[in-house]
Amino acid sequence: MVRWEPGARERLVVAAVDLFFEHGYDATTVAQIAERASVTKSTFFRHFSDKRELLVAGQATLSRLLAEGISAASPDATPLAAVAEGLRRASREMGPVSRKLGSRIKAAVAASTELQERDALKSVGLAAAMADALATRGVPALAARVAAELGLLAFKQGYASWVEADGADDIGLEPYALAALDELRSVTRALS
Amino acid sequence: MVRWEPGARERLVVAAVDLFFEHGYDATTVAQIAERASVTKSTFFRHFSDKRELLVAGQATLSRLLAEGISAASPDATPLAAVAEGLRRASREMGPVSRKLGSRIKAAVAASTELQERDALKSVGLAAAMADALATRGVPALAARVAAELGLLAFKQGYASWVEADGADDIGLEPYALAALDELRSVTRALS
Repeated sequence: MVRWEPGARERLVVAAVDLFFEHGYDATTVAQIAERASVTKSTFFRHFSDKRELLVAGQATLSRLLAEGISAASPDATPLAAVAEGLRRASREMGPVSRKLGSRIKAAVAASTELQERDALKSVGLAAAMADALATRGVPALAARVAAELGLLAFKQGYASWVEADGADDIGLEPYALAALDELRSVTRALS
Repeated sequence: MVRWEPGARERLVVAAVDLFFEHGYDATTVAQIAERASVTKSTFFRHFSDKRELLVAGQATLSRLLAEGISAASPDATPLAAVAEGLRRASREMGPVSRKLGSRIKAAVAASTELQERDALKSVGLAAAMADALATRGVPALAARVAAELGLLAFKQGYASWVEADGADDIGLEPYALAALDELRSVTRALS
């Protein structure tokens, strides 16, 4: 039986999250991360500019996937139906490793203001990517912004529920993210 | 005629924003900020822990005002009506200096990733303060979260329009923030 061996990039992310979790973000060095991932320091720097970038390793990919899903939605889809397509597309790329890392990432971020800031900017970037994709579909700027913020909340909320529900089941992120979007939709309707 | 002389804290904020704007955030030192504001370095450190904190000097106050307004809203106010009270309360404290600094702050933030991160975390904090105040009123968590995000968008949107419209008029932030909330409200209704 061949054992699944993730690539250097993924090993670096897992090693970093584990070390941030065990020793704290500030006390963890690039050398320790590289050693734990069994790669050299120069391999580390081929993949990431510094240790902080590890925590948002997936931001560019995630932005692209959310935007691609929104762009690929049927032309007559409402803004929120297009957002749902974005969540579907992005969710399918989130595998068991993303799920396993979830609670450790959360703990590492909670313990470091620096990571909270980087994480907050990541959210801004994801929302902007969705808003841009919606605007390209002809959704007016303000509606695009609100729909994107709801999409971001749904993604985060869905991810949190998925991570929390981690057990023997093989269910991916998709149903969690879509359920969160549905819930946000009805909450929003009832707001004013 | 007595000339209005702002206190050291406000002078430090104005001096810092000007220097960030003129020389860039990275190239500006605490010593330069203190000198421009005509205070000593130790006065600087009595008010702020570092130069970055200057940009978010008002976050704690702003969070408090938004939350106070929400708490003081009539008991039967809808979540968004309560948010409107928060915006009213906070807007009244934003004077001509806040308006004058707006475009320079925007330029300084746009030019520095570090400031963008801090600014993003400030937004997270403001939204959390509003969501907490709504939850205390008995609004369910998810509805509180959405209403708070709409309130945050309205505040930012209103502030941006207010700064842009800076001219001879003496109009405060309040009508701009409330108009933005109204617009977001109707956009949100039409969303799904």
